[in-house]
Amino acid sequence: MRISNIFTKTSKTSPADEVSKNAQLLIRAGFVYKEMAGVYVYLPLGKRVLDNIIQIVREEMNAVGGNEISLTALQQKDTWETSGRWSDEVMDVWFKTKLANGTELGLAPTHEEPMTKLMKNFISSYKDLPVYPYQFQIKFRNELRSKSGLMRGREFWMKDLYSFSRNQQEHDEFYEKITDAYHKVYERLGLGNLTYKTFASGGSFAKYSHEFQTLSDVGEDIIYVHEGKRIAINEEVYTDEVLADLGVERSELIEKKAVEVGNIFTLGTKFSDALDLEYTDESGARKKVFMGSYGIGPSRLMGLIAEHFADERGLVWPESIAPAKVYLVSIGEKGAQAADELYDELQSRGVEVLYDDRNERPGAKFADSELMGIPYTLTVSDRLVEAGQFELKARSGDTEAKLLTRDELFASIGLS
Amino acid sequence: MRISNIFTKTSKTSPADEVSKNAQLLIRAGFVYKEMAGVYVYLPLGKRVLDNIIQIVREEMNAVGGNEISLTALQQKDTWETSGRWSDEVMDVWFKTKLANGTELGLAPTHEEPMTKLMKNFISSYKDLPVYPYQFQIKFRNELRSKSGLMRGREFWMKDLYSFSRNQQEHDEFYEKITDAYHKVYERLGLGNLTYKTFASGGSFAKYSHEFQTLSDVGEDIIYVHEGKRIAINEEVYTDEVLADLGVERSELIEKKAVEVGNIFTLGTKFSDALDLEYTDESGARKKVFMGSYGIGPSRLMGLIAEHFADERGLVWPESIAPAKVYLVSIGEKGAQAADELYDELQSRGVEVLYDDRNERPGAKFADSELMGIPYTLTVSDRLVEAGQFELKARSGDTEAKLLTRDELFASIGLS
Repeated sequence: MRISNIFTKTSKTSPADEVSKNAQLLIRAGFVYKEMAGVYVYLPLGKRVLDNIIQIVREEMNAVGGNEISLTALQQKDTWETSGRWSDEVMDVWFKTKLANGTELGLAPTHEEPMTKLMKNFISSYKDLPVYPYQFQIKFRNELRSKSGLMRGREFWMKDLYSFSRNQQEHDEFYEKITDAYHKVYERLGLGNLTYKTFASGGSFAKYSHEFQTLSDVGEDIIYVHEGKRIAINEEVYTDEVLADLGVERSELIEKKAVEVGNIFTLGTKFSDALDLEYTDESGARKKVFMGSYGIGPSRLMGLIAEHFADERGLVWPESIAPAKVYLVSIGEKGAQAADELYDELQSRGVEVLYDDRNERPGAKFADSELMGIPYTLTVSDRLVEAGQFELKARSGDTEAKLLTRDELFASIGLS
Repeated sequence: MRISNIFTKTSKTSPADEVSKNAQLLIRAGFVYKEMAGVYVYLPLGKRVLDNIIQIVREEMNAVGGNEISLTALQQKDTWETSGRWSDEVMDVWFKTKLANGTELGLAPTHEEPMTKLMKNFISSYKDLPVYPYQFQIKFRNELRSKSGLMRGREFWMKDLYSFSRNQQEHDEFYEKITDAYHKVYERLGLGNLTYKTFASGGSFAKYSHEFQTLSDVGEDIIYVHEGKRIAINEEVYTDEVLADLGVERSELIEKKAVEVGNIFTLGTKFSDALDLEYTDESGARKKVFMGSYGIGPSRLMGLIAEHFADERGLVWPESIAPAKVYLVSIGEKGAQAADELYDELQSRGVEVLYDDRNERPGAKFADSELMGIPYTLTVSDRLVEAGQFELKARSGDTEAKLLTRDELFASIGLS
């Protein structure tokens, strides 16, 4: 993409009322725009990052048998009264609205009830189980305060998968499988080493639920990490009983700040009881379907990754989700001509390039490349063209710019 | 995709309160689920169709220089008071809601105001123009009645692009360019021959706006078609003056029913006046930005295509948007083994296949293939395997099933 064809610009400032570091950086880099607290517009480069995160999650959900669908934001009262969650006192983040005829509606903050209702049309026999529908959808949550940028939104992207199983055993097998899938997601997002499966409070059907917590100074959660076992315990369940359950000692655990980047729950028959979702088993008996739910917030992940990896020069995206792999800077007339050709070649070979073809001083171009956090900055100047060289600098780490031949350049960015 | 891995099922019936033919068919085929009137869930195969339509529109919008972004559903009152459209009397399709602190919010039924507000951050000089941001977004419209299935929703998908130009001349050039892009979209959706650029009422800044109207008996609009000139006139402006403007005679025009599948407007400075969106021109003078808006409804298109092409056996999708190109039916044991291999080969060569691997009688499989509207049904049975043959039947038209060799089969579905 040529920078001259994108309408956004970088900025030295962010809105005075924006207190979150991730939003400040993303706004300055032209990736998002603040519509109101907790509600952000995704601009061209920000949308690319979000879409890249979503695609990684999609691939891993499909790999465990997920069926992608899209539920609705508008919700009817009677669907949610079945579980008692229509009440603003039970679920305090509803946005409510009304049809023209006065009928009350709500904007879904989560989708257990409508998903369970939907499945009543498709599940009747043990032969129909297990199934794993999921969606990427904009959720609406009427948070009292929303000061964490993309990390706690009032309108935000969520992936929610729901499992429908015959029994606890079938459920447990899937629960293990999707735990692995979640680890793969964080690995691909560059958060693998930092992210711990964390024991948190369960419910009627399981002693524990599990969060995926990414260690970060920007986190608001406190967890206790066992590095050897690669697990952690949320402070809410940090008790002697839990330590004994997990066979770990207090002395082995380290207190850390972390951000919750996913959670998985054993729901059991809570919602299939409420909405009467049954199946006929092999013996002809009617049984309630055994459920689980599995969430990941792509927009929260974008905020966390933005904030966690940033340095004093700006954003630093992992290659897997960066809006482009290479930021191409041309300097001078011969440089521009050589850059035009290089841009076409790299794009045609599948390397995403942000080509800064503006008539700007080189310093401004380099500063924008760093603020935007593009993994590689590639410079083509008159002087370099004459020397048959290219200058390549990696965004992360303190690696120096390297002068490379054409072959060395292509090898460095993964083209042989 | 194996049918056994998709949780949906076809059905002989649709909900009793569903009066729309497109929704009845799409529900019976398992493509959508009715959450409430005008609000539909997209199930796995329906989501594929919708995504295929969106991708075609995206490619054509990118080809004319569009920048894809994603605005927000939640909207603040003050943004819309600038234009007077916050009032429920001026715009009667608002869903309104409230923040926890009592602040009024609305759910965007369209996005002229927030898009104009956004662009104030990025447009200051003539050098910043023209620009063409667009989005695919779920719009919310509080329609009094909603009985047309996917063709008139309360929560539905819309592509809206907005043009920001220096002056009317620059605007007019883009208006022509995007008109061509719209024709390409309808061509790719199989609606090219049926779709007419239609003159409709304009506004303060242009005598006409333009609708794209697809001839169909399911339409609720009346248009007057000039087949020679490939244009039409909406009945709302079917006057002697307009006929004279366009140089056509009443006798040359045929009255037809049609469905509006897109519209483009010259907005002029209506919204840049309201929200004070200015730029500095070449001479240093401050001028208002000249705007246009360009809408296409992917979910409405899905409903129209479903309803228009359907026959007594079910849906009939154009290949460009079908959820799969081939519906593969296996019969018998040897048939199943050969079908497994064929499925893997076709998928690996980029042909999307719905593989009906269920233990069902052949008649049920053929009926589902026809109800779902998959372009080709390919049968592999024990008997055919022994004869070294494959049976291929096209969904559209009355073409007979053909017995083909392997080479003939591959050629027939576009593999050489």
